[in-house]
Amino acid sequence: MTRPLVALTMGDPAGIGPEICLRAMSDIDVLERCIPVVFGSAGVMKRAASACGIKASFMDIALQEWNDKHIAQEPLVVDCGAIDPDEVEPGKVNGICGKASYAYLKQGIKAATEGHVSAIATAPIHKVSLHLGNIRFPGHTEILAELTGTKSYCMMMAAAEIKVSLVTTHLPLKKVPPMVTKERVVEVITLTAQALQRFGSNEARIAVCGMNPHAGEEGLFGDEEAGAIRPAIEQAISSGYNIEGPMSPDVAFLPEHRKDIDAYVVMYHDQGLIPFKMLAFDEGVNITLGLPIVRTSVDHGTAFDIAWKGRASAGSMIQAVMWALRLAGRQ
Amino acid sequence: MTRPLVALTMGDPAGIGPEICLRAMSDIDVLERCIPVVFGSAGVMKRAASACGIKASFMDIALQEWNDKHIAQEPLVVDCGAIDPDEVEPGKVNGICGKASYAYLKQGIKAATEGHVSAIATAPIHKVSLHLGNIRFPGHTEILAELTGTKSYCMMMAAAEIKVSLVTTHLPLKKVPPMVTKERVVEVITLTAQALQRFGSNEARIAVCGMNPHAGEEGLFGDEEAGAIRPAIEQAISSGYNIEGPMSPDVAFLPEHRKDIDAYVVMYHDQGLIPFKMLAFDEGVNITLGLPIVRTSVDHGTAFDIAWKGRASAGSMIQAVMWALRLAGRQ
Repeated sequence: MTRPLVALTMGDPAGIGPEICLRAMSDIDVLERCIPVVFGSAGVMKRAASACGIKASFMDIALQEWNDKHIAQEPLVVDCGAIDPDEVEPGKVNGICGKASYAYLKQGIKAATEGHVSAIATAPIHKVSLHLGNIRFPGHTEILAELTGTKSYCMMMAAAEIKVSLVTTHLPLKKVPPMVTKERVVEVITLTAQALQRFGSNEARIAVCGMNPHAGEEGLFGDEEAGAIRPAIEQAISSGYNIEGPMSPDVAFLPEHRKDIDAYVVMYHDQGLIPFKMLAFDEGVNITLGLPIVRTSVDHGTAFDIAWKGRASAGSMIQAVMWALRLAGRQ
Repeated sequence: MTRPLVALTMGDPAGIGPEICLRAMSDIDVLERCIPVVFGSAGVMKRAASACGIKASFMDIALQEWNDKHIAQEPLVVDCGAIDPDEVEPGKVNGICGKASYAYLKQGIKAATEGHVSAIATAPIHKVSLHLGNIRFPGHTEILAELTGTKSYCMMMAAAEIKVSLVTTHLPLKKVPPMVTKERVVEVITLTAQALQRFGSNEARIAVCGMNPHAGEEGLFGDEEAGAIRPAIEQAISSGYNIEGPMSPDVAFLPEHRKDIDAYVVMYHDQGLIPFKMLAFDEGVNITLGLPIVRTSVDHGTAFDIAWKGRASAGSMIQAVMWALRLAGRQ
């Protein structure tokens, strides 16, 4: 069987992205299952390899050449030429790095949208560098949605141990409550159920968390449960989904509940990410549900403090490739 | 050495309070270290003992008799007479139960304030029953503050594994952000450091969590870190405390951080309670810091579904007594 192509976007040049792409593209398990194609800067990858003491040799071609041919038989770096490799200072916030990381992502998305790769797995970008580079998005997910024209999407964090889908993601806590609407909760439940089906759970059980302490304690500590979350659950149940909730967030993640739950729908970032990272640190991947392409990501940041030092683990990047293949139906 | 007296307030008569008080007052470890004095209803305790199949025999005296003498040589139930025992329906929300649970607490607080007991450990009350009984408080902590005239206080959840102090507790999520002020964060840090000192940590290390995703990500996801939390940390450090933060909430509770931290200061209920219950379910106790009396509580609710069925664990109630003795300097 031909191995599918998976695009890896290199992420912020000054972070650990180049190192984890290097490690992932020479990982035996990865190479057995797919041909990794890194969208990034060949010059940066070479500098990072030398700084990290990684003996990596890889083929590289210019973006134009890739765009003309769209093929790869072996691991490949597609040089997107968005940055002068010598200008990159490892571990430093920099607008030119933000701009470059956006360019890599854009090319990866293009390759997936046009069907030249089966999926994309993204290395971390730095939100401040992005901002300094005048790329006005809070993160990967929003860029993916915009560039693929997707309106209905959500972020899922996935690991063998636990999966959580987020109703809201990267916004200030005070902006969360008005975003928790019945429509949005139904949307996230539906996207989650569809994803679980792709993972092979036909009778998937989904737990929906409340937003307030004790899930609002019958209205004493907030009314979003009665006004939005419970009606959303009722609608999802009437559509045939197997849903529990609204669950009190502080007990939802105890083992006695987890054993009966395939995925959680959480209302805000830390409600899901605190338990997720406690249970699956270093194994988790970030999946964008609802896109017309398959996209997964590492669950960590650029880790500027250890950038280009040879100390980064590619565990999450490798997992991102594996989950991408699973979602694309190629494994 | 004379054993100190510890008041146990019976909590909601229709919940598991009577059962866990019965079990705690006959626990060997408890009896070795203190004389438990339950403030509640002797009639309810007897009905619950019989329903639960617990062969408990205990002395009981009327409230007036206790108020006249203030002594106990053996485990005792002080009958506060606030309810007709035959009217209690186990597992049912009821205003008369809410009212009674408030009366027990009030008497326990009085006994502690007047120095007749060394500390109080409280069994769970039911917030809706309280509300139906026209007791207008969201929970134990606020009642304790009001009845002791305390302005500066906070809730700490404590277990051997982890301790968390809460800047805000039982209020809707949307009301949290304006409550996170520099003054309040400094107050909670200070109360926490003082408590840790009573537990024997002189060089206590306290981690303060941010409020927003990624602790605000340098202002991109919220400004409470820059406007309130960071200035509070700076002030606390300049007062000589050993503080870290603002930490990104989703990684703050990973083992690599926990090993260096004696207690966490968290901004809202579930930020602290999700990790706390995951790490210390069934062992945790709730402590009110800043009161003129020592008060601890179980970390669970009234568990109406198993009330009076003989299935409740007194583990947390017993721990509440033990932590109370520790805080009172009697152990």
